[in-house]
Amino acid sequence: MTEFELIGRLIPKLPTNAQMVLGAGDDCAILNTQNPDQEILFKTDSVVENVHFNADTPPEKVGRKAMARCLSDIAAMAGQPTVGLVTIGLPMGFDPSWVERCYDGLRSVAQQFGVAIAGGETTRSPGATFLSVTLLGFIPKGRRALRSKAAVGDAVFVTGELGGSIEGRHLDFEPRLAEASWLAEHFDLHALIDISDGLAGDLGHVLNASNVGSELFAPTIPIARAAKLRARNLVDAKTPLLAALTDGEDFELLFTVPGSQAVQIADAWRKQFPLLKLSCIGKITAELGLRLRDANGVRILPTHGFTHFTER
Amino acid sequence: MTEFELIGRLIPKLPTNAQMVLGAGDDCAILNTQNPDQEILFKTDSVVENVHFNADTPPEKVGRKAMARCLSDIAAMAGQPTVGLVTIGLPMGFDPSWVERCYDGLRSVAQQFGVAIAGGETTRSPGATFLSVTLLGFIPKGRRALRSKAAVGDAVFVTGELGGSIEGRHLDFEPRLAEASWLAEHFDLHALIDISDGLAGDLGHVLNASNVGSELFAPTIPIARAAKLRARNLVDAKTPLLAALTDGEDFELLFTVPGSQAVQIADAWRKQFPLLKLSCIGKITAELGLRLRDANGVRILPTHGFTHFTER
Repeated sequence: MTEFELIGRLIPKLPTNAQMVLGAGDDCAILNTQNPDQEILFKTDSVVENVHFNADTPPEKVGRKAMARCLSDIAAMAGQPTVGLVTIGLPMGFDPSWVERCYDGLRSVAQQFGVAIAGGETTRSPGATFLSVTLLGFIPKGRRALRSKAAVGDAVFVTGELGGSIEGRHLDFEPRLAEASWLAEHFDLHALIDISDGLAGDLGHVLNASNVGSELFAPTIPIARAAKLRARNLVDAKTPLLAALTDGEDFELLFTVPGSQAVQIADAWRKQFPLLKLSCIGKITAELGLRLRDANGVRILPTHGFTHFTER
Repeated sequence: MTEFELIGRLIPKLPTNAQMVLGAGDDCAILNTQNPDQEILFKTDSVVENVHFNADTPPEKVGRKAMARCLSDIAAMAGQPTVGLVTIGLPMGFDPSWVERCYDGLRSVAQQFGVAIAGGETTRSPGATFLSVTLLGFIPKGRRALRSKAAVGDAVFVTGELGGSIEGRHLDFEPRLAEASWLAEHFDLHALIDISDGLAGDLGHVLNASNVGSELFAPTIPIARAAKLRARNLVDAKTPLLAALTDGEDFELLFTVPGSQAVQIADAWRKQFPLLKLSCIGKITAELGLRLRDANGVRILPTHGFTHFTER
């Protein structure tokens, strides 16, 4: 059984109550407060040694990544993060300076976004070192930048450039908090997600949740320099386009808006965020599935099972 | 460096913001909402294989313990838990039925207290299996059942019986949520904590935070049957009194109230919670330190370093 199948079995049985607005299945849960203007975002995420980092990773970057991943999930709901808790599992005989440097990284990215750290938990972990970060955030009541809101005729956008994040960006990425809030405030933002599993996989999540399909136009997909360099330098590397479609941990935003707003958004974006690329890469269709169009025609892309995904 | 020393180094450097009412150092953090009547409690806690459970522990009890520990921290603030997130780290080749049974335990104790589970995170953990639970709760604004509120002349109470929890109660304990809320609503509750590190250790946390001392009267300390059986059956067991003072994971409440309310509380408690013992075990003093009085006189108890603590 895969993790996804397991999660699929567990989620329907989770208990709920009157405070839950949105449970498992999107980037964050949404909770009621008694405040008529706001709702709470609630999210946890973890990094584990030898999965998300290794012994050679500078500890500041481990801490930064643990916090920034969770911040990216708040961005994926167009929310404002406020306070976090940090759990760290350490082996016997841990190196205190590793932990202090790890916290330096956590703290620096938290402060960059005005997030407080309300403490957390330190526990012994006989196996691998792990960090688990939980964040609270807020959204204006009724804001629904969900995976499930993509509509036929929407334009599909991504921020930044994709692929090859293993070369370093998986540790250095910027959570797109300001960008997501700005989009939600100024446009009719439909679906929103952050790209953690790879463009095809995360767009797949949006398509499944929204019960729609999508056609992407290959030449418009923004490919990161790291993906191109890997393709040139490594014998068994993915092609750059495949890397952009399937590498994980880009932590860019993927969103859809009504097609009629596409030009207006692209123009406004260039003025608001002149240093960050925004690309319109395709459209949402009634025909289900994910398709990629290029000069040679259209082919179907799988949205999962990337291990067996090969480019022709 | 011990975990406590490490935490002591990290806490002062944690970033804060306007939403933080109380940061690290008590059982939960307290956060502002824009609601004038409520504040948010925020707490995370974890259990790790071969530290808090082992391969022989029934998985339902592992899940139950992970959730109940965190619920006990909400009780220790006299709060109302509402929604939780669960992170689980699993080895490659995990047993899906173990995970499902673990979630059965999580779910059952969550439902018992009306707590929703808003999802969480599943991650690979190459070392030990771990569960990390984060809870949100609420308290009426201004309720301050803190470790730091013990005052000279207070009576010291504990619920239930202490010691020997390793015999099973560390997996089966009941978070004292209703009891703590009732105390806070009806009495001038000063300090409150749950007993996770052992009576002497957790009372020590209260004394340090409140800058006071305490004298306990040994015959009044409620000793669990499990601690007595261990003393009888194991060659190298602690005496029952030492076990009650120093065994961890009792998860009973320890609280202080003005001495003038002690009799009234004991009477009202018997009517409200006839099945749960409440014991007045001593008093808060201006003289610092923790002292134990018995028929032979008074001796000083250490509040940490239990490994080297021996009874005369």
